[in-house]
Order: sequence, then structure tokens, then C-alpha cells
Amino acid sequence: MRTVFWENNELRMIDQRILPARFEVLSYHAHKDVAFAITDMVVRGAPAIGAAAAFGLALAGYESASTSTEGLLADLWTAAAVLKASRPTAVNLAWAVDRLMSVAEKRKLEINSNDLRQLILDEAQKLADEDVEINRRMAAHGAALIDDGDTIIHHCNTGALATVDWGTALGVIRTAHDQGKQIHVLVDETRPRLQGARLTAWELEQYGIPYEIISDNMSGYFLKAGKAQKVFFGADRVAANGDVANKIGSYMLALAAHDNNVPVYSVVPTSTIDLSLAHGDLIPIEERNTDEVLGLQFHGEPVAPKNARARNPAFDVTPNRLLSGIVTENGVVYPPFNINLVKVVR
Amino acid sequence: MRTVFWENNELRMIDQRILPARFEVLSYHAHKDVAFAITDMVVRGAPAIGAAAAFGLALAGYESASTSTEGLLADLWTAAAVLKASRPTAVNLAWAVDRLMSVAEKRKLEINSNDLRQLILDEAQKLADEDVEINRRMAAHGAALIDDGDTIIHHCNTGALATVDWGTALGVIRTAHDQGKQIHVLVDETRPRLQGARLTAWELEQYGIPYEIISDNMSGYFLKAGKAQKVFFGADRVAANGDVANKIGSYMLALAAHDNNVPVYSVVPTSTIDLSLAHGDLIPIEERNTDEVLGLQFHGEPVAPKNARARNPAFDVTPNRLLSGIVTENGVVYPPFNINLVKVVR
Repeated sequence: MRTVFWENNELRMIDQRILPARFEVLSYHAHKDVAFAITDMVVRGAPAIGAAAAFGLALAGYESASTSTEGLLADLWTAAAVLKASRPTAVNLAWAVDRLMSVAEKRKLEINSNDLRQLILDEAQKLADEDVEINRRMAAHGAALIDDGDTIIHHCNTGALATVDWGTALGVIRTAHDQGKQIHVLVDETRPRLQGARLTAWELEQYGIPYEIISDNMSGYFLKAGKAQKVFFGADRVAANGDVANKIGSYMLALAAHDNNVPVYSVVPTSTIDLSLAHGDLIPIEERNTDEVLGLQFHGEPVAPKNARARNPAFDVTPNRLLSGIVTENGVVYPPFNINLVKVVR
Repeated sequence: MRTVFWENNELRMIDQRILPARFEVLSYHAHKDVAFAITDMVVRGAPAIGAAAAFGLALAGYESASTSTEGLLADLWTAAAVLKASRPTAVNLAWAVDRLMSVAEKRKLEINSNDLRQLILDEAQKLADEDVEINRRMAAHGAALIDDGDTIIHHCNTGALATVDWGTALGVIRTAHDQGKQIHVLVDETRPRLQGARLTAWELEQYGIPYEIISDNMSGYFLKAGKAQKVFFGADRVAANGDVANKIGSYMLALAAHDNNVPVYSVVPTSTIDLSLAHGDLIPIEERNTDEVLGLQFHGEPVAPKNARARNPAFDVTPNRLLSGIVTENGVVYPPFNINLVKVVR
């Protein structure tokens, strides 16, 4: 089953908020509900939210009562703005919506409103299908970087759940495992939302890949002790110079790897590369509700004083100097990224 | 109230496992219970467990039925071994027990068993009183390093709860605050046991010092954004070359500070300095039960799959090159630590 898919005229998505305790698939019929699902992280992971937004736009087409192509297009633009505003950091969201709207604009003079509705849905489906195929290509390029016997530190969740299917960084690990390489994964729990402990561990259990969960602040210990040979994570946006915005904690993990001469790879579809931004400091960083930090219980007790204050930036930027390579569906990009990254974006 | 104190012929300690939800003081009458309380982290923090072990040894004296000085001394040696084995990394535990046993050995030929019991208790009380006085001196030295308006990142808990009273790194922050300096503290929650979110935030609330809790992996974000001017933490053991073993995550925090030219200070009583170890890789690192990593709930749901595996090293070593200074009761030590550290140990 895919993480995000269209079936019986509705969008269906695995509810990632409640895994691993429960596995549920939710159905969506309205684009505003999809936007909220993205904000609330029913669906998360840059490629997955791109696909969700694309299908959300398709829903907006069917929600619109307009019988004219022009009227429908206006409704789609309104829905596109709602969907794009649901999360700011991952560029795939805007990329997916823009791609669909661009197709709509290109064909608007030649088709009626019903054909436009179908066109948007077809393009969303195409985008979702391509995501799976792109992940497989990324995985093949990335798996060549993994040696038999490697212990790999992985941050956040970048597996099937973060994409339409297969995964980016975790897809690389799956493919290397399928190639028969013995791999052990140290899974960063990934505070505050714990996507590593909840989702990545859950996926690795299913794939039969050995793993151990660590808290994020432990990776330095294992890297310094020579217990990890590679670091892999995904990305939510890559700037033109190779600076990578990814889940909070990626920067410190990359620093610790770099300090111990352990290579760090970010695995991304080229749709995550934003050549319009010269460097990573220009990437908008989402700050989320502090309940994600404070709403934790340890042995049934709250972990912070009542009325405690907190901060919750959801992403950070890893400077290009800490990355050994950026794995894309068109090959592995090596430094200097400001020269080589543009070559893989087609 | 002190964190660890002797009253009515018993050892009393604040139960740090259940703060901030509940404030309870537990009473101890047997050294084995004290050893378990140290292992189970009723009491934690290098100076606090040193004092707890000292009073634990005093309890062992009263537990012993021996009427001869020689017999009592043998029982004390047995108890000393039990207490020293309760946690391996913090050297204060062994230092405190060794100090009491050394006094006992020195006086054994001239006193009877009852006087020896009293001698051990007096020495434990002296050690506890000295800890408070030492913390105040450290705090005065360290506070001079803090500027008005500083935002300080603090790891774990190093306050009154980690000591007999006042604190080491947090003691520095308290003293700077008492001097009228405007300070803001970014409190690392400090996974897995969450001593920052639970204990440091609770202390800062009481002192009226503004703070915000962050997950450990966020400090790099704030350091890179220029939002923090100093990093302060304690230590469980300092090697002769200035390598510092401290709560897991300290190394990655120091790396992130160093990468952004933000000074990092470790605040320690000289009893934490172990000149017998040439460098930090020789410090034993405790690996604790993985339930501390996995036994978390997020919005009432378990955070990891059933039967998930984990790792749980409790400390890491920050190499001396990442430290700007080591604050002791005898002054601030600057690099080269292998030359300057020995000068403050008296």
C-alpha cells in the first residue's frame, strides 16, 4: 500500500500521527482538509506532502461548482494558495502544486472544465507514480555508497511513509539491504515528533533490517567511538549551493560525523532542489507549536513544569561543507555543489 | 532545603525521579538502599551522588553490629565497594567514599568503633557543607564570564538538585542573575532522562530566571542563528588533559558552539578532576537500561514499536579542544589544560 493514494474518487493517506500504536488510513474529499492534514502531520516527508498537495488540488477541482474552465481555474488557484501555505519549509509542496497549475494554465484554452478536472487528477497521479520511480533510481545510486557491514546513522523518517512509496535515504538503505549487504541502522529518535522512533523503527521492523533507536544527542558518541560508517538523511529543501534544510538535528548530526571523518549524504529527488535560493539561510524555517516539545510523558509523568515555555524550530540548515554528497535520481552530486548541483536538475 | 542532607539519624534526599510532577523527600537507613537510589537516579549529579555516597557510608557504620574498630572498618570497606559500584562515570562518588575511608584508616588505631562511626558521619557532613561553599566559589568565578543580556544554552541539570545546594553550571547562572545581569536560558531537555525539562526548568521557575526548553537537537539551530552567546554545562569526570565526560549530548552541543565561535564552559569542583587519567577515552562510560529511551509517551501513545531495540550510553566525552574554559572553585582554567588543570587541584 502506498502512503498517499487515490482510490474511489477520494484521497487516502496513512495516518502517521498514531503509528506505531495503530495503523489507520484516512479518506479526504476536500482540499482544506488535506491542507490541515499536512499542517497536522497526518502526512509528512517532503515527497509525500508534495503528492498529498497534488491530490488535494485534484479534490479542489471536484469541489468547485464552476462549469466554466475559467471559473474552475480561479477556484484551483485559490485552493493552490491554501495548500501551499500548509507548511513552509519543504519546497516539494510548492513544486507539486505549481507543476499542476502550470499544466492547467497551458491547456486552459483548449479544454472544458470537466476535462480540466480530469487533467489535474491525471497529473497528480502521474506525479505520484513518478515519485515511486524516482525513489527507486535514487536508491540505486545511493546503495552503491553503502558497504557490506556498515552501521548507518539515519535521522527522522525518509522511508515509504515520507514518500509515495519506497523512500529517499531509507530507500537507499532498503535497496542496499535487498542487495544482500549486511547493514545495521542507528535510528535517531528525532525529537520532538519522534519520527525516527515511531516511523523509521516501524518500517525497519517490516523490512527485517536490524536497528537500534538512539536519542538524537547520542549519535556523536557512536561516531566518536568509530561505531558508524555513514550518515544518511533526506532533505526538505536544498539551496543552489548545496546547503540542505532538513529535520531539526540534521546539522548537529552532520557536524558530529564531519568531526569524525564519517561521510554524510542527503538523499533527495531533484524536485527538492531550489535553485532560486543562493544559500541555505534564505530557506524559511517553520516554527511549530511548543506542545510538540512539552507534551511528552516519561513513565506516565509530564516531562516539564506546568506552564513551561519552549521553542520548536522544525528544521535546520546543514551547510554544504559538511556534506560528502547529495544523492538524486539523476546521480550522486559531489562538491563543489554550487557548480555540480545544477547539472542534475532537468 | 538541601538536596541531600542528614537529619534525625537518617539520610534524606529529594526524589528527583518524580519531579516536577511531585516533590517528595525520601529517607534512607541502609547503605544498600542508598546505592540503589544512586543507580536508580533518586539522586543524580556528580556532586550530589558524592554526598549521598558519603552519608551512605555513615549509614553503613550504624548498620554494622561490630563492637571492634577493626570489624567496623571491614564492614565499611564492604559498604564502600557497594556504594562505589552504583554508578561508574562520575568520579565524585569514588572520591567521596575514598576520602572518608582514608580518614577512617588514618584514625583507626586511636579510636573505638563508636567514635569511628561518628567520625565518618562528621566527615560526610563536612564534605556536604564544603560542597555548598565550593559551589558558591565556582559560581562567583563563572559569573564573571557572563555578560548582561546573554542567552545561555545549558545541558542536563547542574543546579541545587545536582549538588548538595546551589549548583555548578546552573549555580554560575544563578549567581550572574543575582548580580542583576539579564539572562535568558535555553534549556536542553536532555534526553533520555529529561533532566533539563524536568529539573532545570523547575529550578529556573523558582529562581525567576527566564528560560525556554528546547530539544537537544535544536541547540545547533540557535547557535547558528547567533541567538546564544555562551554554553555552560557541568561534568562527571575531567581527565588530566581537560577532556570532559558529561551527560550524553554535551559533545554535540560543544561541537555546535565551537562551529559558531560560541564559548563553552564546563563548571566542576576540583573533586571531579581525575588527574590519574591522561585523556577522556579512558573514562568509563555507563550504558543504562534502554527503557529510558523507549519508555516515553507522546500524547499518550508509545513512541516506539513493541520490542524495539535501543542503545543508552549515559555520557559522552567532549574533547578539550572544544572547551573555552573549565570553571573550578579555585578559578577558571584555560587551555592548555594539560598544563593548567593541575595547578588548581590542591
